[in-house]
Amino acid sequence: MPVRIVQSKHNARLKELRRALVRPGRDTHGLVGIEGPHLLEEAVRAGVRVACVFVAQDAAELAEHLPVSKETDVLIVPRPLFNATVETETPQPLAALVELPDWTWSHILRGRSTWDPLVVVLAAIQDPGNIGTILRSADAFGASGVISLPGTVNAWSPKAVRASAGSIFRMPVIMATLEECLLNLRESGMRILTTTVLGAEPADMVNFTGPIAIVIGNEANGVPEGIAEHADSRVTIPCPGPVESLNAAVAAGVLLYEACRQRQTAAGGPRQLRGQGR
Amino acid sequence: MPVRIVQSKHNARLKELRRALVRPGRDTHGLVGIEGPHLLEEAVRAGVRVACVFVAQDAAELAEHLPVSKETDVLIVPRPLFNATVETETPQPLAALVELPDWTWSHILRGRSTWDPLVVVLAAIQDPGNIGTILRSADAFGASGVISLPGTVNAWSPKAVRASAGSIFRMPVIMATLEECLLNLRESGMRILTTTVLGAEPADMVNFTGPIAIVIGNEANGVPEGIAEHADSRVTIPCPGPVESLNAAVAAGVLLYEACRQRQTAAGGPRQLRGQGR
Repeated sequence: MPVRIVQSKHNARLKELRRALVRPGRDTHGLVGIEGPHLLEEAVRAGVRVACVFVAQDAAELAEHLPVSKETDVLIVPRPLFNATVETETPQPLAALVELPDWTWSHILRGRSTWDPLVVVLAAIQDPGNIGTILRSADAFGASGVISLPGTVNAWSPKAVRASAGSIFRMPVIMATLEECLLNLRESGMRILTTTVLGAEPADMVNFTGPIAIVIGNEANGVPEGIAEHADSRVTIPCPGPVESLNAAVAAGVLLYEACRQRQTAAGGPRQLRGQGR
Repeated sequence: MPVRIVQSKHNARLKELRRALVRPGRDTHGLVGIEGPHLLEEAVRAGVRVACVFVAQDAAELAEHLPVSKETDVLIVPRPLFNATVETETPQPLAALVELPDWTWSHILRGRSTWDPLVVVLAAIQDPGNIGTILRSADAFGASGVISLPGTVNAWSPKAVRASAGSIFRMPVIMATLEECLLNLRESGMRILTTTVLGAEPADMVNFTGPIAIVIGNEANGVPEGIAEHADSRVTIPCPGPVESLNAAVAAGVLLYEACRQRQTAAGGPRQLRGQGR
């Protein structure tokens, strides 16, 4: 494994990592930056190619047991330089540049499990924590893929990657215009479900089986009218309490749970059980 | 309304606000700090007493239409001093000191709606965003109250208050030791449900009607054994996907939804419908 010690903040790889953390995928030839040994493991486990690993010098022993191939560049970086590059409040001692997975519409639209396609559409979701949490739930509840519409925060931003707890490496995500999104959903025969308050059916009365796309709207303004008008069903989550709305990631999680519950009941098959975590 | 302009960072009220934001409720005689006009409105709407309002000088016109009583102190604070006090990255132009609601066990344990008590127990939840989001869901799904066990982050920390979207002012929260918690739950005849992976029943097969307490565990380590051993039921959320666990706030939201769904189906009553929001 080519291990080198870097001393200069002008090192090309370090600058690339910095750019990849700030503007993932844009000026970095499809590379994104990730932080922490756990995310690196998840990336490798998902088959994502690792371009370069950065290890803080005070934790240099980590470089000896990396889960990457012998050809991968490994750079040891003095702690002040390392911290200045990642700019997390409490930085982990490891970062990496990995290649953006090359997802296509066929990944998004085909069923990932043994069941019908289940797609999540992000319509101008603003909070990276919400995006990452939605990806994690989509992964957990067997969604096929995620479509990110204009106005949605980059799913590869460091906060979103962290909140996804590794699901970002497995869950197909594609950026698309509203027109491309609608065209592809229609062509593959998917029903479109949007969340709204007025004129909506309660979630447990809506049919979530068959190929469907669930649209999750903006945290403040909900689902944009441009997509709501194309909905086959408008769905709401029945709440007896005095709140205006649920958190967007919780709403997505509940709808994915409901879809999963209906599909598992319909299939009558064995269940995979998971607990609750971070 | 007594409106004054403050010029000194040594102003007692400003120092009190600073302390209340950093260590809510502890060194501040039961006062907590909140930020933004929306949260102030929610606090007032919930009947929380407002001790003092702080308005940034460049937005001084806000002081003319505050939803507070004429006796409430209002301080106009020059922007640099205001920003240094609240220390949010992008501060809103308004902050306030409000009185901690005085919740008792009877608030927590009695049913808030027309149905049986539904309590959420936070067992060492670490992320303030998760706490606030869980409070918001608990409020939405008609929970009676929340018990915060040792090791759980303060529900009044600014990030938790923000994530609660105002639910913190309505939802009874009490801090308790594990012993107090178990004693009170047992005495009021509540069943205890914990989330776990092994030996657990899927959520939709568990009975969520009757008086119950749902325990949400630590983000990394789940429900501590000290409370898991007292569980009447161990419940899991069936997930077909390859993830270890769900986000703690999503898991709580899903279980509260499932409880709500079962209770509404059992009651056969009318539903209150809500959409999805921020």
